[in-house]
Amino acid sequence: MRISELSRRSGVSVTTIKYYLREGLLRPGRQTAATQAEYDDQHLRRLRLIRALTGVRGLSVSTTREVLDALAEHTGDTHRLLGLALGSLRVDDEPAEEAPEAAEVSALVEELGWDVHESAPARATLAETLSSLRSLGVPLDRRTLLPYAHLAERTAILDLDQLDDLTDPLEAAERALLLTVLLEPALMALRRMAQENESARRHPS
Amino acid sequence: MRISELSRRSGVSVTTIKYYLREGLLRPGRQTAATQAEYDDQHLRRLRLIRALTGVRGLSVSTTREVLDALAEHTGDTHRLLGLALGSLRVDDEPAEEAPEAAEVSALVEELGWDVHESAPARATLAETLSSLRSLGVPLDRRTLLPYAHLAERTAILDLDQLDDLTDPLEAAERALLLTVLLEPALMALRRMAQENESARRHPS
Repeated sequence: MRISELSRRSGVSVTTIKYYLREGLLRPGRQTAATQAEYDDQHLRRLRLIRALTGVRGLSVSTTREVLDALAEHTGDTHRLLGLALGSLRVDDEPAEEAPEAAEVSALVEELGWDVHESAPARATLAETLSSLRSLGVPLDRRTLLPYAHLAERTAILDLDQLDDLTDPLEAAERALLLTVLLEPALMALRRMAQENESARRHPS
Repeated sequence: MRISELSRRSGVSVTTIKYYLREGLLRPGRQTAATQAEYDDQHLRRLRLIRALTGVRGLSVSTTREVLDALAEHTGDTHRLLGLALGSLRVDDEPAEEAPEAAEVSALVEELGWDVHESAPARATLAETLSSLRSLGVPLDRRTLLPYAHLAERTAILDLDQLDDLTDPLEAAERALLLTVLLEPALMALRRMAQENESARRHPS
């Protein structure tokens, strides 16, 4: 397809597509004339992924390139690929600072028996959040967090179930990225509606 | 306490406290001299709440004032209060647009038997997210969402359990706000770690 059709089908403007081509986020199309190139479904899929990472999640172009490069380097190793896809995005996309609660997070992970890399960004995110809550007078101990962690385990099973039918590891990694990044607001919206419902149940008017 | 101690105990600068006073987010202290006022624990609690809403969640000062005013008006009705605290924050704090998936969300809520207000912002958030996922080629139908919703139900029970020991409805509403807003990154971090663990389990190297 021409760049104009690629733009129409991806919802990304031609100007932006050209910018991604210059920045190396998108591979060049097959040159068919001096000023014309042909693009395929791989380009379309890649564009959708870039749009999800930069647009919905707000990652910078350089972070997006790092994530995509890392994905491309490990096409043979499904767990490694999924780990990169799932782990490489910090919730707030900021460099980590060691919070005093890091040890508490490690103890939690050990108690759960989870196989989580020492440098997984989610560890730092969790530690920082616990630290914020403590400073606001709402300390959460491990006993409170454990049942949440068990529900997260069951959520992750649902997440991974959605990748099982994909045989191409790169496609699975891309889907994992989309589901991780884009399902977050949906899950939080479900939690808020469920809270409203549970509050109505407990406090009938 | 003096404003300097209020600043030290809340972690909010004196300049910012004075700004909140001018903007009406914080009630004035008890005047003890021409240039001196006395503040109490109510001020401290209120400041922590404002800091959570503006700092961690990034709400604007005017949205924060609306939320706090709404809380103050309904001190007698616990469910109403919690509903306001839990429902008044959109995930992205943007005005809602009616997504074509709104009807699908209504069908989901009905199937779950949830008591959720027609205008709850979480409905719009969920609809928009489903719309994004569909446009990215990852449509999620109701059958896929239902088990996530059931886990959200159980998460909400844990959330509400943490409010049960609070007898003051206003304090409960404040705690609900903090837990809703601040626990989100922690829950998402738990989900990511659980995904990594589940991926390791399914794809042993």
